Amino acid sequence: MKINWSGRSHYFSKNDLNYFSKVIKTADPLTQGTYLKKFESSFSKYIKNKNVLAVSSAASALEMIASIIDLKKGDEVIIPSHTYCASAIPFARNSAKIIWSDIDLDTRVVDIQDLKSKISKKTKAVVFVHLYGYAMDLSKIKSYLKKKKIIIIEDCAQALGARVNNKMVGNQGDFACFSFHAQKNITTLGEGGMLLFKDKKLMKTLTQMRHNGHCDFNFKRKNYWVPAMGNLDFELKNKWPYKFTLSEIQCAAGIRLLKKINQFNSLRIQRAKKAIKEWASLKELSFNKNFINKRHVYHLLSAYVDPSKKINRDKLIKTLFHKYKIKCAVQYIPLNRYPLFKKNGFGKSKCPNADKFYDNMISFPFHIWMSDSHFNYLINSVKKAVLELRHD
Amino acid sequence: MKINWSGRSHYFSKNDLNYFSKVIKTADPLTQGTYLKKFESSFSKYIKNKNVLAVSSAASALEMIASIIDLKKGDEVIIPSHTYCASAIPFARNSAKIIWSDIDLDTRVVDIQDLKSKISKKTKAVVFVHLYGYAMDLSKIKSYLKKKKIIIIEDCAQALGARVNNKMVGNQGDFACFSFHAQKNITTLGEGGMLLFKDKKLMKTLTQMRHNGHCDFNFKRKNYWVPAMGNLDFELKNKWPYKFTLSEIQCAAGIRLLKKINQFNSLRIQRAKKAIKEWASLKELSFNKNFINKRHVYHLLSAYVDPSKKINRDKLIKTLFHKYKIKCAVQYIPLNRYPLFKKNGFGKSKCPNADKFYDNMISFPFHIWMSDSHFNYLINSVKKAVLELRHD
Repeated sequence: MKINWSGRSHYFSKNDLNYFSKVIKTADPLTQGTYLKKFESSFSKYIKNKNVLAVSSAASALEMIASIIDLKKGDEVIIPSHTYCASAIPFARNSAKIIWSDIDLDTRVVDIQDLKSKISKKTKAVVFVHLYGYAMDLSKIKSYLKKKKIIIIEDCAQALGARVNNKMVGNQGDFACFSFHAQKNITTLGEGGMLLFKDKKLMKTLTQMRHNGHCDFNFKRKNYWVPAMGNLDFELKNKWPYKFTLSEIQCAAGIRLLKKINQFNSLRIQRAKKAIKEWASLKELSFNKNFINKRHVYHLLSAYVDPSKKINRDKLIKTLFHKYKIKCAVQYIPLNRYPLFKKNGFGKSKCPNADKFYDNMISFPFHIWMSDSHFNYLINSVKKAVLELRHD
Repeated sequence: MKINWSGRSHYFSKNDLNYFSKVIKTADPLTQGTYLKKFESSFSKYIKNKNVLAVSSAASALEMIASIIDLKKGDEVIIPSHTYCASAIPFARNSAKIIWSDIDLDTRVVDIQDLKSKISKKTKAVVFVHLYGYAMDLSKIKSYLKKKKIIIIEDCAQALGARVNNKMVGNQGDFACFSFHAQKNITTLGEGGMLLFKDKKLMKTLTQMRHNGHCDFNFKRKNYWVPAMGNLDFELKNKWPYKFTLSEIQCAAGIRLLKKINQFNSLRIQRAKKAIKEWASLKELSFNKNFINKRHVYHLLSAYVDPSKKINRDKLIKTLFHKYKIKCAVQYIPLNRYPLFKKNGFGKSKCPNADKFYDNMISFPFHIWMSDSHFNYLINSVKKAVLELRHD
């Protein structure tokens, strides 16, 4: 392969590597120490939300959300079928009936009209996924959902730094999660995530929920070791805390990369815009639309390949793969199509756009450490491949 | 403090740090790649068990065990009250009724007679914890439990390298977990664990369970991207997979430290034996007994302080803390005493030994990177403190 699909979003500078070595060399404790506090406080400042907790993954954050919203059997949670499975599994495990929402073909995120049509008296929560880094504006739907007492959850796994009206996504609803997985806009060395929440009164409960119920005693101890070295408690009835802790070296990586997030995102945006401009004459490909007041951070660069044209998606992927040695991907098969969801009664959806988009989409390799020359090669190869297929 | 309680069990050599830098610099992907495979295969060889899966923590391994044994409401799981809370929480979450087993005062692990008295028709599983690194011999109780179709789970979080009749603990039952948390005999940089299981037929299900149900398709695909980049499935009915993945750098640390585990454990054993020998004349302190055919790896060095003597535990901790600047700990408050367990109906136990041991135990700082001179200072300070208190 000339341009492969990468399993990491970042390579590190010599200074970064020295910093990581220093942390590994000196941190005591190796988990739940000062780097955790520092990462949370940096993240908090960046995202402008005081209620943040670093956790082992975005899936862990969603698991905590699914637990704290206290779903009862029969409660419905509406989730786009076009997303990664971790957006849905925690809710399914916590006994939600999942209702699949469709996407808007222009934005590839939740279609508000479709969502409204799927709300019922049993709807307990709605998950909005800012997929591909596209910032979804919830301002209009928010009051509608609030009136119905429906909980709003933002899955910002791919959207760190995405903004609506200059405000960071993750602050529009009741809960949000971010991911620092290997391929994300920043990564805590492969695994990691962040939980955000609106109601500051939940801080104590969620902090306990993150780490086996660990907490302070609610009285001053005379001796540090009695009645025990620390207390364990948890305020939610019939629920149990988790072990979703992020280690110090992971937090240190988060601290380090977060300092450069604007630089990373600017490069993503600049490159995505360049490619989309260069491909403007290729009418077979279409891209995200509707950017008024939005900052799309392009976690991925993907296109919809119009199936009515001669150049279908599969032909394009094949040509890029075999002739140009570029490995593209297709992403976010509608979750209802997987055996995992079928077996559990979530095999059906009314999401024609999600189906249509998935069946005709292509995702180009878009790791930001790609050299300019490789990126130009990608742009030119896609142009050439489309033109060749047109005249095939 | 002259000798503090440390939040890390290891410092790393220059070579280790260079190795970690190389991994961070070059690994692609940053999670679920070749280091995971290599760590699992090294661990597998060391522990002599082919069925191992590296996971995010020992708690994650226990969560997977608690899920796969398919507990029904009313099923009882017997767990020592004298252990860390993560031994119990996953079972409680998965609807077990927890029955607390008592410990033997000589070994500080499950008392077999007490255990037998607590088995009922509803007993679905028993958790044995090789606490402090003491290797518990299950050979006698095993067939008794098998006859009753009771599942045997070994919690080896503190016992990597502990052996019974020259066989590694973790191979005596149906399932086992190990921990690589910050303070353990080896650490995957703060967080990490390993799941072991006896029945190789479970490999597929547990591999899916570890990572959101990811698996191969059960047919050969013509194109790598259809029907999707990968499949999601899960064989257990009404269960959902987790996100319990360990990153490449964490696995790399595991690979690196596992090479030196014998050296680490030998040092632990040698130092523990030296201290116990030097303290032999202090009749107020007693240590683990019963070592026939056993290799105790001394994750911790703890003593029982005879409450009938003048020198009680609290006085000893105070003296060591204030006069000798040594920070000791007390560990494993009977879990039934925590609000977390009380609130959920597990507040009562019949475990007089666990209560008595906890109320009178002292755990000395025992990180193996402690210098010889500090370790000798610890030995001598304990001697002096006991003698002073005797004549107080």
